[in-house]
Amino acid sequence: MSAPKRFQPPTGTRDFFPADMAVRRHVEQIWRQVALRHGFDEIDGPTFEHLELYTVKSGDEIVSELFSFRRAGGEKDYALRPEFTPTLARMVAAHGSDYPKPIRWYSIAPMFRAERPQRGRLREHIQWNCDVLGDPSPRAEVDVLAAAAHTLALLGLDPAEVRIRISHRDLVTLLLTRLGGVAEAALTPALAWLDRRLKVEPAAFRARAGELGIATEALACLDELAGAPRPARALLGPAIDALGTRFGAIADGHPALRHLREIATRLEAAGVLDWCDLDLGVVRGLAYYTGTVFEIHEASGAERAIAGGGRYDRLVELFGGPPTPAFGFAMGDVVIRLVLEDRGRLGPRESYLPRPDAFVIDLAAGAPRQDAVLMQLRRAGLHARASGRSSTNLGKLLGDAAKARARTAVIIGSEFERGEVAVKDLDRGAQQVIPLAALDGALRSILHGGAAPH
Amino acid sequence: MSAPKRFQPPTGTRDFFPADMAVRRHVEQIWRQVALRHGFDEIDGPTFEHLELYTVKSGDEIVSELFSFRRAGGEKDYALRPEFTPTLARMVAAHGSDYPKPIRWYSIAPMFRAERPQRGRLREHIQWNCDVLGDPSPRAEVDVLAAAAHTLALLGLDPAEVRIRISHRDLVTLLLTRLGGVAEAALTPALAWLDRRLKVEPAAFRARAGELGIATEALACLDELAGAPRPARALLGPAIDALGTRFGAIADGHPALRHLREIATRLEAAGVLDWCDLDLGVVRGLAYYTGTVFEIHEASGAERAIAGGGRYDRLVELFGGPPTPAFGFAMGDVVIRLVLEDRGRLGPRESYLPRPDAFVIDLAAGAPRQDAVLMQLRRAGLHARASGRSSTNLGKLLGDAAKARARTAVIIGSEFERGEVAVKDLDRGAQQVIPLAALDGALRSILHGGAAPH
Repeated sequence: MSAPKRFQPPTGTRDFFPADMAVRRHVEQIWRQVALRHGFDEIDGPTFEHLELYTVKSGDEIVSELFSFRRAGGEKDYALRPEFTPTLARMVAAHGSDYPKPIRWYSIAPMFRAERPQRGRLREHIQWNCDVLGDPSPRAEVDVLAAAAHTLALLGLDPAEVRIRISHRDLVTLLLTRLGGVAEAALTPALAWLDRRLKVEPAAFRARAGELGIATEALACLDELAGAPRPARALLGPAIDALGTRFGAIADGHPALRHLREIATRLEAAGVLDWCDLDLGVVRGLAYYTGTVFEIHEASGAERAIAGGGRYDRLVELFGGPPTPAFGFAMGDVVIRLVLEDRGRLGPRESYLPRPDAFVIDLAAGAPRQDAVLMQLRRAGLHARASGRSSTNLGKLLGDAAKARARTAVIIGSEFERGEVAVKDLDRGAQQVIPLAALDGALRSILHGGAAPH
Repeated sequence: MSAPKRFQPPTGTRDFFPADMAVRRHVEQIWRQVALRHGFDEIDGPTFEHLELYTVKSGDEIVSELFSFRRAGGEKDYALRPEFTPTLARMVAAHGSDYPKPIRWYSIAPMFRAERPQRGRLREHIQWNCDVLGDPSPRAEVDVLAAAAHTLALLGLDPAEVRIRISHRDLVTLLLTRLGGVAEAALTPALAWLDRRLKVEPAAFRARAGELGIATEALACLDELAGAPRPARALLGPAIDALGTRFGAIADGHPALRHLREIATRLEAAGVLDWCDLDLGVVRGLAYYTGTVFEIHEASGAERAIAGGGRYDRLVELFGGPPTPAFGFAMGDVVIRLVLEDRGRLGPRESYLPRPDAFVIDLAAGAPRQDAVLMQLRRAGLHARASGRSSTNLGKLLGDAAKARARTAVIIGSEFERGEVAVKDLDRGAQQVIPLAALDGALRSILHGGAAPH
């Protein structure tokens, strides 16, 4: 044994102590609740995959971010999953035919990136994925976007604070080819560069865009359309209202615009349209996106994207499955928490810890009877705790109960001889003596007005 | 793009499709429920740690099982966590002083082993850890063992089917030194070899035990004590009833025996003692264990250990923290599921999937009104789904509702013009027409007799 030393968690990873963990669970619980209400089924896959699952299909952005490794003894290379979509597409390629379409699945699991940590971007984060597979129609987009908007609302945010920015790769491509003069063969690097638009200096952006053959007119049009995104409600009107005079005339009647219009009509019916902007500045970096893409941003532009997603109609096929249109999105736990903190939407961290239903106090040193009462309450489904100290001082022990934020105290005193204990309602102060046999029911009455415990 | 190919998950890892995931959540939910009721707070740490966190303190068994890797660019080596205890001890060493003692924490998270997969032992599994830190008294053991027994009961098992086998390293050491003639310096390899007792051929076991200097008398005594474990209730009586004539006389009055006796007394008060055996054949392989150790096994010996744990009173200090007695255990999701399957304690996998509260059916092709009703129900907290097909055939759509195991169908038909829909109770068959404004309440009445939704 060497001399004692302090160990640190790896750079860019987090220790979740109880109050922090409770806040994480608060966010995850809302994700889970929305997924359940919206009819998504939960799935999961391995935390690491064969490296080639990522090298076969992703843009360079993903590949350079991988934690990859080889098993001692040397088999194939593995990588910690940087995102969930390849795992999902692999699973659907293998067994999607066993399920009626559309498939609507979600997962909540850790993802990993090997790059240098930055604000809002860690090496390990928890990510929620929601996907609809097997549906080429706008319903897939509506299913996912409605769930996203519902989540933002349950987190306490409103449409003035966060915006769902919707775009379509075919419209951006149309803009690049018709206004920008970009040749078919140069489209992939041009789209990838557009995704960097707000991440590099404007002068550097224009210089490289010029090298890629993107005409100035297209960049000016993009600045106009993306600089001040229009509310997606504009999609319900004429094309020039949504896309401006120049590009509106070109895009009018295009299938991608019709697709976005149907999405807008259905989002309006679902009461979700007011969360959404049309923003052709959104391109998404991943190579596999094929149609509608979107990002969720804090309205003022603070912080990184809260969530992002899009159509990936060819990915399942690439992994050996049948042609399967697909649309999905992912939200990580890091940026949304920064936004909620920025906006003061989180209470004190401790307030997210579950409150004990009962705090058991024994006024005599008599561990076994305290153990028996604790176990009786726990078997009855109640959250029961006791003090860590061996004190029999009622005042000190009630102090411990208050520190634990317990809702009631169950006091084992002289009445225990005749099978009774005292119960104190710590929120309201009332105290009563209750037969042990009736204890669970009496506590339920105090806690829930007679209903079953949470 | 190469030709489409099918990808497989890495050997020894699992894809969780919805029904499998629902069974996993069923088990995890019971873990979580027990931890909550028993007053443990949830924590988590990084999925990977610095490799040295494991090399500094673990027995060789752990180190040979690691998936380790180095970041491209070359920092320190990392390893996927093979177990949670080192992370926990690191966290307590760094910040344990911020929390009143005893600390009672749990976590549910994936763990990784690089060895060849076997039945009950995969390369990635989900593990529940429960630990009490800062309490040297038997209360720590009782807190953890009571939670373990409660979990087994909630999973549908009883004490005739699974046994908690309790041991104490000091008693095994006493047996090795006093009956076995093993010298102090040879204790560590001798203990490690005892842990292999049931995993190697008896002849090979005896041969190597002889080389380690363990006298035949000790092995015979061990066979007698471990071959047919005594109910832990024997600890309430004389030492010779618990440990046999020869070893009972030696161990009588030993602090380890007194410690086990107090545990037994308190487990009896908590109504948990009948789950437990005294079994000195349990040693546990990890080098950091210091006192009480235990394993949970299927009673007939089928399958690997369901869970295991023990005292590790020096680990927090080794990681640079203050001296901190500690006791904890871990249960993985793989073996417990095999035992539940062996015993027929799991229903059909699909029965664990959440049932939709409402299945929305539109008798006219009218997506927006269906979207509006779906969103109304989801905003009201209900789990609402719709068919994936564009059919308007009521019979077919009711068939889809039945396949989805929905509890009610909400039918949008001609009454929608006057703001009404039909609601059919799919479990009982009754149907009624309800104003849209009263729909949530009407569904709640059908689903929960008027109470709030789950």
